[in-house]
Amino acid sequence: MSEQLESKIVARLREILGKDAVAADHDELMVYECDAMTTHKSLPLAVVFPRNTEQVAFVVKLLAEHGIPFGPRGAGTGLSSGAVAVGCEKGERAVIIEMARMNKVLEVDYANRRAVVQPGLINVRLSQAVAARGYHYAPDPSSQTSCTIGGNVAENAGGPHCLKYGATTNHILGLEVVLPTGEIVNLGGAGADSIGFDLLGAFVGSEGTMGIATKVTVRLTRTPQMVITLLADFLDLNDASRAVSAIIAAGLLPAALEMIDKVVIAAVEDSIYAAGYPRDAAACLIVELDGLQAGLETQAKRATDICFANGARSVRAASDETERKKLWAGRKGAFGALGRISPDLFVQDAVVPRTKLPEVLAGIYAIGAKYNIRLSTVFHAGDGNLHPNLNFDGRDPDEVARVHQASKEIMKLCVDAGGSISGEHGVGLDKIGYMPMIFDQASLDAMLAVKDVFNPLGLCNPGKAVPAQKMCREHKKGFEHLLAN
Amino acid sequence: MSEQLESKIVARLREILGKDAVAADHDELMVYECDAMTTHKSLPLAVVFPRNTEQVAFVVKLLAEHGIPFGPRGAGTGLSSGAVAVGCEKGERAVIIEMARMNKVLEVDYANRRAVVQPGLINVRLSQAVAARGYHYAPDPSSQTSCTIGGNVAENAGGPHCLKYGATTNHILGLEVVLPTGEIVNLGGAGADSIGFDLLGAFVGSEGTMGIATKVTVRLTRTPQMVITLLADFLDLNDASRAVSAIIAAGLLPAALEMIDKVVIAAVEDSIYAAGYPRDAAACLIVELDGLQAGLETQAKRATDICFANGARSVRAASDETERKKLWAGRKGAFGALGRISPDLFVQDAVVPRTKLPEVLAGIYAIGAKYNIRLSTVFHAGDGNLHPNLNFDGRDPDEVARVHQASKEIMKLCVDAGGSISGEHGVGLDKIGYMPMIFDQASLDAMLAVKDVFNPLGLCNPGKAVPAQKMCREHKKGFEHLLAN
Repeated sequence: MSEQLESKIVARLREILGKDAVAADHDELMVYECDAMTTHKSLPLAVVFPRNTEQVAFVVKLLAEHGIPFGPRGAGTGLSSGAVAVGCEKGERAVIIEMARMNKVLEVDYANRRAVVQPGLINVRLSQAVAARGYHYAPDPSSQTSCTIGGNVAENAGGPHCLKYGATTNHILGLEVVLPTGEIVNLGGAGADSIGFDLLGAFVGSEGTMGIATKVTVRLTRTPQMVITLLADFLDLNDASRAVSAIIAAGLLPAALEMIDKVVIAAVEDSIYAAGYPRDAAACLIVELDGLQAGLETQAKRATDICFANGARSVRAASDETERKKLWAGRKGAFGALGRISPDLFVQDAVVPRTKLPEVLAGIYAIGAKYNIRLSTVFHAGDGNLHPNLNFDGRDPDEVARVHQASKEIMKLCVDAGGSISGEHGVGLDKIGYMPMIFDQASLDAMLAVKDVFNPLGLCNPGKAVPAQKMCREHKKGFEHLLAN
Repeated sequence: MSEQLESKIVARLREILGKDAVAADHDELMVYECDAMTTHKSLPLAVVFPRNTEQVAFVVKLLAEHGIPFGPRGAGTGLSSGAVAVGCEKGERAVIIEMARMNKVLEVDYANRRAVVQPGLINVRLSQAVAARGYHYAPDPSSQTSCTIGGNVAENAGGPHCLKYGATTNHILGLEVVLPTGEIVNLGGAGADSIGFDLLGAFVGSEGTMGIATKVTVRLTRTPQMVITLLADFLDLNDASRAVSAIIAAGLLPAALEMIDKVVIAAVEDSIYAAGYPRDAAACLIVELDGLQAGLETQAKRATDICFANGARSVRAASDETERKKLWAGRKGAFGALGRISPDLFVQDAVVPRTKLPEVLAGIYAIGAKYNIRLSTVFHAGDGNLHPNLNFDGRDPDEVARVHQASKEIMKLCVDAGGSISGEHGVGLDKIGYMPMIFDQASLDAMLAVKDVFNPLGLCNPGKAVPAQKMCREHKKGFEHLLAN
């Protein structure tokens, strides 16, 4: 694109959205060159901050007419580079549509347990807004104090409590969406069921490639009457894995069932998140049970017995809300704590059948040793959703190469065990090359064909979710009528 | 289509599938002219009974090449005419691909709680097959003793226990699908999460318009340790509605929460399904609680107290499994019992916010009175999923006209209350005309465009799910390469 066109577009955006709603200086743009996965960087052409649906539609239409690629962004906490805006061709820059200013709770309907929010709303703010009435928003990514609901929708985000309550897709009832052509449509609705094709389901998790959500109707969840949080520690990691399978096999459905290994325990205990995890344990499990008070103690007793039967050294319940919050702060602060021990951190994400956890974990540690990488795991054990963490120094090209090679082998190991290449972080730029590991060409083609329906010019968040067979310039053939020049 | 081509196709199908796998005589075909909704009838051109995926793919490819419309069918228990095969043009006949002979459980993996089954498997047979090991398949339509898993996938079927456990879409992990072009693809997978676009979600509930499922990977659910089933009776139907809202608002999540009105009580008690429902009540609620034994009695006590606080005359728990089964046999046999009081029965289906139940129910009974129709309701109250039943005589054209007019007004009433035109039975032929009540043209166009990706010739189950803007003959433009003649 010519510099002249770039200046013209930036001027036009400022004219309509206001001067303070468009960033185009190099120093400002640097903030937006990556998300929480620092291995992929790309400087945007500009960042715009719309305040309402009409402004989003205007921006999208203007960019589409001029063939300029663009992508949405929330808080930039993603871990697959989904919010990094890249162009359709190498070196081409894209515009970031930053949703942070659209951050209101628009409507709360307690009787029917739903709320309508703007996509830039920070996840935990919704739970805070409805807490006094005894409700919360269930999906709770570790980044919930900073990530946005819109970003959660784009990535179909998970979180510890998704074991019992389901991931983001199970909590989205309807969406107002600006399509990549600038058209505004509504998907799903306020009702419990949807009819026609489930396009709402297809949109959630499409990583910003099908358009930009501008209004989100979510399900509110009743806050449980009682919560019991157990911390169990094991001297053998395999025992902890077996306890996980045994708890689920016994018919218990904990609200969360998390595993933290030795390296992570040390990192957390050395940090401001110190939670009192025993430093000499090979692994800890956090087992949280919630629901009606009646019978919950009995469930906790059963979970405790199962942990002991599988070799736990000790199991204790958080004695009060302060201690419970501390146990969780340690778990949710784990990635931050790991960040302290090396300049860079690569948080991997994969999912395997629960029963395969012992063998897959052994294989992952072996890969870490083989490539001489400081590797640790902290993850949603209850649903087999692994997070191997690779600490490294991005300034050491040899180490970077080893991290990438190890990642690839970990992916292969999980796929061979009947798992998948992502449990909740998404495909983004990072995993796009791994998609053929688990999908044949006919299935990828079907996905691309559906994407083309929403995103005919291929300008909306190119390079994410599904590997394209053609560059977006080629997409334009047959869609000339949508282009201004 | 010429009779010559018809004979040629039938001969070719018999040659490949075997003589006993193709029905084409008028008397045989009569059985397949409608599903459980008798108001829509269409005689098929032929019915084929494939035994495996390859035979399905062969049939689909042959029919697509010759431009002959076709549609899948399970047990024909549907209530929106989704399994009635119609052509692309008025009077044109279609081929039914009847999946009844693909009825095996292929694989059960208890450790990871999943099973792979063929689509013609009868719903309850799966639960029976895994019962001894303490598992079941959760979605339980009232027709579960005869409906098929494949049909459940096509319609995203619900059932009483979907209040707690979710509808069919929440229990499908993966599908092998023969696309409308004859290509075989896999959607979703065995893992807990799916990556890429959620085409599995879009396929479930697409009413046979995106292809034919030939293998279904389902989630198995642990059978609860204990079940308590309460029968509450009310002298005022509004009190029963209010009790429903109050139970949910109290944070209880019953496994099922069903309402049965006076007319249905009488019909059931007069039939072989007689369950001991009190004949003088205005309405009964069935409230079922399940889970771990610990604390379940306390939950039942709370539900009982709430019923009394909202005007229940009596609340009793089934004393044993025999009585529990009897209470359910009455509920699930309600449509059969209603079938005894008139030659025809129109089972409506809609969903409204729970809080609107009292006013919507009053409106529905008023519509029944206005059109002088014997109207009753029996439904999944817990999730606001209404089933108004209209008894009538199909030989009386005036009554038929009144039934259709009343249905239309009921739909409008539910939509105006913030609801939708179907909760679980699907759109099919029956509700296709109501779709514009709840979707604008841009949303319908997006659905049609997605359908075209899967079903480019429009030959696969035409006339269902989403109202087409063009006949399938027009669809063929640009797809000539797929056609043999």
